[in-house]
Amino acid sequence: MVASHSRKVILTSRPQGVAQAENFAIVEREDRAPGAGELLVENLYLSVEPAMRGWIADAGNYSDPVGIGQVMRALAVGRVLASGSSDHAEGDLVCGWFGWQERATVAVDKVIRKVPENDLSPSLALGVLGINGVTAYLAMTGIGEPKPGETVVVSTAAGSVGSAAGQVASILGARTVGITGGPAKVRQCIDEFGYDAAIDYRAEGLAEAIAEACPDGVNVYYDNTAGAISDAVYPQLAIGARVVVCGTAAIAQWDPWPQGPRIERHLLVKRARMQGFVIFDHMDRWDAAVAQLSAWIRDGRLTYREDVLEGIEACPDALAGLYRGENMGKRVIRLACA
Amino acid sequence: MVASHSRKVILTSRPQGVAQAENFAIVEREDRAPGAGELLVENLYLSVEPAMRGWIADAGNYSDPVGIGQVMRALAVGRVLASGSSDHAEGDLVCGWFGWQERATVAVDKVIRKVPENDLSPSLALGVLGINGVTAYLAMTGIGEPKPGETVVVSTAAGSVGSAAGQVASILGARTVGITGGPAKVRQCIDEFGYDAAIDYRAEGLAEAIAEACPDGVNVYYDNTAGAISDAVYPQLAIGARVVVCGTAAIAQWDPWPQGPRIERHLLVKRARMQGFVIFDHMDRWDAAVAQLSAWIRDGRLTYREDVLEGIEACPDALAGLYRGENMGKRVIRLACA
Repeated sequence: MVASHSRKVILTSRPQGVAQAENFAIVEREDRAPGAGELLVENLYLSVEPAMRGWIADAGNYSDPVGIGQVMRALAVGRVLASGSSDHAEGDLVCGWFGWQERATVAVDKVIRKVPENDLSPSLALGVLGINGVTAYLAMTGIGEPKPGETVVVSTAAGSVGSAAGQVASILGARTVGITGGPAKVRQCIDEFGYDAAIDYRAEGLAEAIAEACPDGVNVYYDNTAGAISDAVYPQLAIGARVVVCGTAAIAQWDPWPQGPRIERHLLVKRARMQGFVIFDHMDRWDAAVAQLSAWIRDGRLTYREDVLEGIEACPDALAGLYRGENMGKRVIRLACA
Repeated sequence: MVASHSRKVILTSRPQGVAQAENFAIVEREDRAPGAGELLVENLYLSVEPAMRGWIADAGNYSDPVGIGQVMRALAVGRVLASGSSDHAEGDLVCGWFGWQERATVAVDKVIRKVPENDLSPSLALGVLGINGVTAYLAMTGIGEPKPGETVVVSTAAGSVGSAAGQVASILGARTVGITGGPAKVRQCIDEFGYDAAIDYRAEGLAEAIAEACPDGVNVYYDNTAGAISDAVYPQLAIGARVVVCGTAAIAQWDPWPQGPRIERHLLVKRARMQGFVIFDHMDRWDAAVAQLSAWIRDGRLTYREDVLEGIEACPDALAGLYRGENMGKRVIRLACA
């Protein structure tokens, strides 16, 4: 292989709260040829997701933080340019932990899966057929367990996890209520993602709106936010409710640790169950989840929205932009070769 | 049947917080002969339990509140004096919702079960073989699911629910850590109830003491308190932990609703499950639970402590006394005929 160079986005300083553009730098480095058990991958799409805030934070998380000077941890989908492993051939489309960089030399265990659904855009492997959709599917079915006719409330209902979670619950026969920010996303929830009702949490009277939309209580709360939205949902839980704790996007930081209304009494009185879900515990079910979600996409029963930024130059500000709420759909970055 | 009179404890006013002696009155009334489908029961032991605070409270609970002028709702164990039902014969020992009164004329559906374990004291049907022990057994096995070698933390560890919960976890092979108030109860936890370690929550450094007693984290937290004790336990949860929400004894009132450190992040990062348990949902498993608990008592593997007050005159102050922490063991009231 001829020596080549590619660009990488590295973390240069650790932010308080959400990482901003100035916490990153773009550097160019020589691509290293893969050794035994390694691959050289040319990335087609890079992922941007709220969980990155946690991957960058120094403490209190479920994985070690990204080190200063390291390439930003990210999921990506790309093609194998050169392979040092018999498991992967040149030209394979793969999805995995390839980082915010144009080309990545990685150990094969960074590959999450080959991407066989060649009839669909490879970018979907980062969204509705990736960590977002698979999380939504496995957490909704495994913890939420919605039954036909039950009421399911989803926070960040128009987001890439939330929109899939709501649609999965609908497909399973539940009545779905989305909570989202602003009239445009409320319309998107109803028109695009098929929620039976949608609530703008920025409007007055959130608690009353939830009570009105859920006259028989909330059987499943799929929570991506924590914070004030969740505080308004808990009093409406029905007997035997299930709460999926999938994210805490509404809490800007956990140091100092924030206070909120105590949850214990709701869980006791309603005999409710509340459980955290982290996708990395469930990698063995990833392929089955993708197969089901792909089938629903081909049937037209499951839809999605993407927010595509162009070029690696878009990376440093892309996460901050998510937290500014500027995207409508799963944010990905398309690289030149895609 | 010759007309007879007996004494009853009625609720005369609704307290803010825990009911005190002045919220009750003792009145004497004629016993009514049982009609069809009714029983006249002579109570032998009356129960006193923390949950009564909730039964008296006006709102936010899992059963309708006791009405002003009504006999205080209570579990009791007694003998059938006269039966209007073919299901029950005169002389049967029964346990059920007979209230704080010497004699009760009740519909047969107030009977929870006949008490067949005649080799053991009938008072146990109100404690370790009653709502406390059965709750501990079903909630610990059904939600806590302790595995051999796991670490189980119990709050109100020396109480009638907590002491049974801790012993059930020990019998199932777990390492148990009790949290209780004061050096005497700490000693009782170790010497009497067989906890592997016990912590005095009134001493300095609760969080550090929990961390030290649970070097591999907390796999199961059986919580009867909520509040500051739970706040100190949550940061120590292990990956995949289970939290049994069985009571909220540390929260004096829920109006205004109290604040505390947010729990969501702990549940997410630790992939933990937190679930409320109310025994009334599980009446179908009561007999099986009593059979198992009775066997363990006869084997000497399960022990208990009772705090026996004498006579119906003890009722009005008995609940307030529980919340003053004056009992060591399950509080019951023995009536003259026992």
